[in-house]
Amino acid sequence: MTPLPSRAVIREVGLRDGLQSIQTVVSTERKCEWIAEAVAAGQTEIEVGSFVPPKLLPQMADTSDVLAFAKTLPGLKASVLVPNLKGAERAIEGGAHLMILPLSASHAHSLANLRKTPDEVVDEMRRIRAARDAEGSTTLIEGGVGTAFGCTIQGQVKHSEVLRLMQALLDAGADRVSLADTVGYADPASVSRLFEQALKIAGDRFCCGHFHDTRGLALANVFAALQLGVNRFDASLAGIGGCPHAPGASGNAATEDLAFMLQASGIHTGLNLSRLLSLRAKVVGWLDGEPTHGTLWRAGLPKTMAEAVL
Amino acid sequence: MTPLPSRAVIREVGLRDGLQSIQTVVSTERKCEWIAEAVAAGQTEIEVGSFVPPKLLPQMADTSDVLAFAKTLPGLKASVLVPNLKGAERAIEGGAHLMILPLSASHAHSLANLRKTPDEVVDEMRRIRAARDAEGSTTLIEGGVGTAFGCTIQGQVKHSEVLRLMQALLDAGADRVSLADTVGYADPASVSRLFEQALKIAGDRFCCGHFHDTRGLALANVFAALQLGVNRFDASLAGIGGCPHAPGASGNAATEDLAFMLQASGIHTGLNLSRLLSLRAKVVGWLDGEPTHGTLWRAGLPKTMAEAVL
Repeated sequence: MTPLPSRAVIREVGLRDGLQSIQTVVSTERKCEWIAEAVAAGQTEIEVGSFVPPKLLPQMADTSDVLAFAKTLPGLKASVLVPNLKGAERAIEGGAHLMILPLSASHAHSLANLRKTPDEVVDEMRRIRAARDAEGSTTLIEGGVGTAFGCTIQGQVKHSEVLRLMQALLDAGADRVSLADTVGYADPASVSRLFEQALKIAGDRFCCGHFHDTRGLALANVFAALQLGVNRFDASLAGIGGCPHAPGASGNAATEDLAFMLQASGIHTGLNLSRLLSLRAKVVGWLDGEPTHGTLWRAGLPKTMAEAVL
Repeated sequence: MTPLPSRAVIREVGLRDGLQSIQTVVSTERKCEWIAEAVAAGQTEIEVGSFVPPKLLPQMADTSDVLAFAKTLPGLKASVLVPNLKGAERAIEGGAHLMILPLSASHAHSLANLRKTPDEVVDEMRRIRAARDAEGSTTLIEGGVGTAFGCTIQGQVKHSEVLRLMQALLDAGADRVSLADTVGYADPASVSRLFEQALKIAGDRFCCGHFHDTRGLALANVFAALQLGVNRFDASLAGIGGCPHAPGASGNAATEDLAFMLQASGIHTGLNLSRLLSLRAKVVGWLDGEPTHGTLWRAGLPKTMAEAVL
């Protein structure tokens, strides 16, 4: 068995994947407060929003402003989600460190959500890469292959199709790629199988695993990926987010629980768990009545870990 | 990496570890209904109660009756927890398939909970084994080493001490041994380390892992143990149970979520997930206001799995 990585990064996606599925609109000021405190707690990578039409997602309308604030924080790598070339142009203009183009490996999900086939999204990647290079921009481009473990609309998604699209994104100019279990269908055995193949294709350009905790397996799935050497994972504070097809279900892996698992397993994260828990409490306070998740906040840190911190 | 086991057993501990930490007293009739429906859902091993003084745990006062009922169900292996020789005598008298003597590897926890040092519990194992053999009984004896990953009272518990006590239990006559993360301090990396050593000591006589989900890691911990070939795990329906030192925290691994993880990972359990979810709903209805846990009940089965069942 490969030893676990000595370090891992949690990329905070609560401000994007989390808030986009929540009714309460969080103000720009509070988003900036969240980001500043996340950085103070040791977070170094944050997805600050997405450049989608404000009419579709009012919650993301202030992404330019939030990105501009995030860029003022030393050491923070701020990323944004971009659904297409138009969004990518805004990310480049705003000087994002990274932009993520999502591609749904499920044909049915891709058509329903993006009104494009997966291969049309690959074409969009090509245009985005050309635009980035033409601008001489340093914004990195990540191709995020979603519904990688199945889809609530079409059901099964073949690993071979996921891997074909990942290769196509790389060929079309993605600097790096990632895999997402958008709807919480993954299990640790399938993570081991698919991620092993993905690493063979993408090598060092495979950068991140994104797991939803819809059926309670997010952390087990992370552990399976860690064992293959993957060392960056998306997560959202208080596990906010979710799947529109499973109302009330758990959302993303909870940042604080994942940070606990990593640190308890001896993997360095640079995160201060107590500060993360305080920030969690603050953010949950802003989301009155919205479903939040996670377990560590209730139980607290183990005595053994509290001692180790002292 | 060792391939995952092809089959695994979930030992239901909701009626013991679950109910013992819950205020609502569940009637004998309902306990028997639970057991019968669990068997109908495919469960083959159930811890039906514990032979402790009824004054200490009124919830367990009917263990003899529940055990007698469980014994009428063909194919079910009914186990009971016994804190000492006196309890063991009742288990033998009742014809339990298995009795579990818990030993706390934390000296402080052992004194606080059992008023005995761990080595005094080893002496009790010797007496229990002698009594079992003297009766010519077929009741198996399991030594369950608890607080194996740390303790809320003394903090750290050394792996060497856990393994020493496991060996001592085997030497004293235990037919088999198991490890329990009584307070939810385990992480998958420490599970890999400790279980690997335990398997070296006990071999085929190592029979079970017992994980609490206090900090959300129960299923990740199970996955780590599965990778070493361990194929029996304790769990409780709706994750009932918990840790008295972490009020409101998640309890045991939830049977239904664990069953989902195993089956999704291609490990045969013989369990019918839909029936388990129906039974979960019924039991939760009996425990009005008590904390219950788990995620699958909210999200439902993935479309891919529902198709596979059809």
